[in-house]
Amino acid sequence: MKKTILTGIKPTGKIHLGNYIGAIKPALELAKVEDYQAAYFIADYHGLTKIHDAYEFRQLSYGIAATWLALGLDPEKAIFYRQSDVPEIFELTWILACFSPKGLMNRAHAYKAIVENNKQADKDVDFGVNMGIFTYPILMAADILLFKTNIVPVGKDQVQHVEIARDIAESFNNVYGETFLLPEYQIQEDTAVLPGLDGRKMSKSYNNTIPLFEDEKKLKKLINKIKTDSLPPEAPKDPDSSILFSLYQEFAALKEIEELRMQYEKGIGWGEVKQELFRVMNSYLEQPREKYNELMASPEVLDDILLKGAEKARAVAAPFLKEIKKKVGL
Amino acid sequence: MKKTILTGIKPTGKIHLGNYIGAIKPALELAKVEDYQAAYFIADYHGLTKIHDAYEFRQLSYGIAATWLALGLDPEKAIFYRQSDVPEIFELTWILACFSPKGLMNRAHAYKAIVENNKQADKDVDFGVNMGIFTYPILMAADILLFKTNIVPVGKDQVQHVEIARDIAESFNNVYGETFLLPEYQIQEDTAVLPGLDGRKMSKSYNNTIPLFEDEKKLKKLINKIKTDSLPPEAPKDPDSSILFSLYQEFAALKEIEELRMQYEKGIGWGEVKQELFRVMNSYLEQPREKYNELMASPEVLDDILLKGAEKARAVAAPFLKEIKKKVGL
Repeated sequence: MKKTILTGIKPTGKIHLGNYIGAIKPALELAKVEDYQAAYFIADYHGLTKIHDAYEFRQLSYGIAATWLALGLDPEKAIFYRQSDVPEIFELTWILACFSPKGLMNRAHAYKAIVENNKQADKDVDFGVNMGIFTYPILMAADILLFKTNIVPVGKDQVQHVEIARDIAESFNNVYGETFLLPEYQIQEDTAVLPGLDGRKMSKSYNNTIPLFEDEKKLKKLINKIKTDSLPPEAPKDPDSSILFSLYQEFAALKEIEELRMQYEKGIGWGEVKQELFRVMNSYLEQPREKYNELMASPEVLDDILLKGAEKARAVAAPFLKEIKKKVGL
Repeated sequence: MKKTILTGIKPTGKIHLGNYIGAIKPALELAKVEDYQAAYFIADYHGLTKIHDAYEFRQLSYGIAATWLALGLDPEKAIFYRQSDVPEIFELTWILACFSPKGLMNRAHAYKAIVENNKQADKDVDFGVNMGIFTYPILMAADILLFKTNIVPVGKDQVQHVEIARDIAESFNNVYGETFLLPEYQIQEDTAVLPGLDGRKMSKSYNNTIPLFEDEKKLKKLINKIKTDSLPPEAPKDPDSSILFSLYQEFAALKEIEELRMQYEKGIGWGEVKQELFRVMNSYLEQPREKYNELMASPEVLDDILLKGAEKARAVAAPFLKEIKKKVGL
């Protein structure tokens, strides 16, 4: 039997190159492994903890769907759905809540970080915390457990969520017997952290991102903004400490990378490197960008694909929820 | 337009006379008011915060359904459903969670009482608290708000839940415009507190209850257990400080009550009073008890009635949830 591998993305911001290299690309690679059944979902209800603007929220959700599809996700092979189209997830969330000690939530990293910030700002510890934020590890557990997920690819900061899902699954299984599969996480060890415009990790919160499907002109502009030192063109340069080179490595062919490395050592002007980076990036992203724009212009196509995906998801979720309800006595 | 009046009962114990007099009877009375549309539900998923034995849980749920019906609830007129048959409630619960400040839950009386007990027992404040217990005011808000409830009849200890539902409704409405009706509570002021076997309030937690549909023999036995003083039969007695008389008043006709009052004043033996109390109680409960036993013997009849009720409930809930989802951008 194939192993289920599940990846969800929250619609809380425009997808940028860091998301692509760090999460989307490796998830799409994993889907190619023969004995995996890949499931991808748009974690829109997770986004609702933060985004309370309907238009923005809708656009962001569509944006994520279009991104996956533009980058090659095959909705025929994968299970590809929108969380909010699968009501079983929310009913399971309540069931799991009844088996989740509150202490488990108190110890969630994301919540603890907010509490810490509030303390330092001399505010009430729960200032700005809504119950969506506080309970989202349970929703995430439902996301994972309802689909009998074997493997969840995660960044290091997400490991705890899979552990919490396991804990909750175990406390349910202890009462009612083997019901939930205990999911395992798979850390994306080998994915480099992509630097942003300022050299720090590319992240929405640093405001240093390059959106994945920015149009050509803006992409060029952003690349021109990337921080460099003030060495003159003819001076030899260290490729391994260069933001431009790091980005280049992700999009260029091996031969091109070697070539540019040699030019760095010989001496090359930053302007020229930026031009070369733009060239490879743009040629890499051109086709998916076109596909992305096409999809974004026809939300009905996206809806159609997602609703078909939700049907596939519910074909797994509904009978399993029924079984779970029977076990608890409902 | 009719006003919706909503009552839910948690299946966490056998219904006793105190539940009947304090909650069920007045709720059934209210349903008779012309311009009210009454909705009753079995809050089974609330019970899951505590009851983790499938057989017991199922029996308790059926027990509540059978109780309502045996006491005269008309499922054709009322909307009568089981919470777990209405998945829309749980999806709305998540939406509302995103608009519920965590501080609101921290201040819920039931949670605060547990924290207080834990402190006094020198335990972790959240000892024994699962997330079902902590978040159930949100589920209760969803129960209320999804059905555009105008009025929630409550005991005094339940007022806060309606207030929390209002608070959550308001914070949603503030963002997306008028969406939820703000429910009002109606305190059951005039309902006497029914004394239990030992004279304290009849309550499961005091272990002093008389189950509503106990069979004749056991009912007689329980009545014989009711505490009295040791006055001899011929001594005049104060009806107003007598547990037996308080109970008698709830089940006897006015004329019978006056009659017994006179006998108290003249002097009557406790044994005789108990016999008389058994007589009126039993004759009051005989028919509903029979109906109850009949229904409990045919759970498929109960299922059928409840599923039809759930259809009626979902006919209100589903389009409203759709409207809500559209507002938030889903």
